[in-house]
Amino acid sequence: MGTIKEVLLTPLRIIPGVSGEVLHALKEDESSFHGFGEAYFSTVQKDAVKGWKKHREMILNLVVPAGSIRFVLFDDRPDSKSFRTIQEVILSRENYQRLTVPPGIWMAFQGLEDGVNILLNIASIRHDPSEAENLPVKNELIPFQGFV
Amino acid sequence: MGTIKEVLLTPLRIIPGVSGEVLHALKEDESSFHGFGEAYFSTVQKDAVKGWKKHREMILNLVVPAGSIRFVLFDDRPDSKSFRTIQEVILSRENYQRLTVPPGIWMAFQGLEDGVNILLNIASIRHDPSEAENLPVKNELIPFQGFV
Repeated sequence: MGTIKEVLLTPLRIIPGVSGEVLHALKEDESSFHGFGEAYFSTVQKDAVKGWKKHREMILNLVVPAGSIRFVLFDDRPDSKSFRTIQEVILSRENYQRLTVPPGIWMAFQGLEDGVNILLNIASIRHDPSEAENLPVKNELIPFQGFV
Repeated sequence: MGTIKEVLLTPLRIIPGVSGEVLHALKEDESSFHGFGEAYFSTVQKDAVKGWKKHREMILNLVVPAGSIRFVLFDDRPDSKSFRTIQEVILSRENYQRLTVPPGIWMAFQGLEDGVNILLNIASIRHDPSEAENLPVKNELIPFQGFV
């Protein structure tokens, strides 16, 4: 476990109100914004895991506005100072941060709550299966055994 | 009640999966994309109302990934063919569409479910209080009495 270079965690504001809240996600003048290709949501059931996936081009900006999601990242960039480092982050409203993931990082994520666990990805490019690789949750390459 | 010109409703895909779903929101090559200024969430409690608000510049792209939200729009553009028309839309996962709102429209929205009612706005410009006007839920200008 450690910290992967160029993986950013940015605390975000939740602004309370009488009728509900406003939750910041991303502004175009923030340093972690790298262009808008597509925004989509991904939901993950409690204990279920989505991944692993590695992008060759897409920069991900991830926010979890409802539920709680555990992200595990594995640095697969041979020229990185954190090559082969594993980083784990749990995002929720209680730890309301934006997770920015550069290309070349394997990522998987797991739902932690009984209700809806949902992430928003503001991706720098549109979905394109040809720029992403997939591996099963259990595999020979990624030395992480923490998904039950 | 009616339909306001330039207010768009675009059906979006929900892609099922074993571990959870993927819910489309917006791609940069879609006609309702008008630039990325900011993305933020707004939550609204059951029966509570947020609004009225009218933007002079911002184009809103609204998606409701959890809960159910009732939107009421009032066309306040004197040169519009739908001037003074009221339009009502309920968005949820059961009616999963994107609502695109141009400048010059008064909008208010109400939470409909007991749990979390949440919208994502992918706004064409960053938040700027000087380009928006606000009115209380009950006011003299907007002839809508349907908020309890």
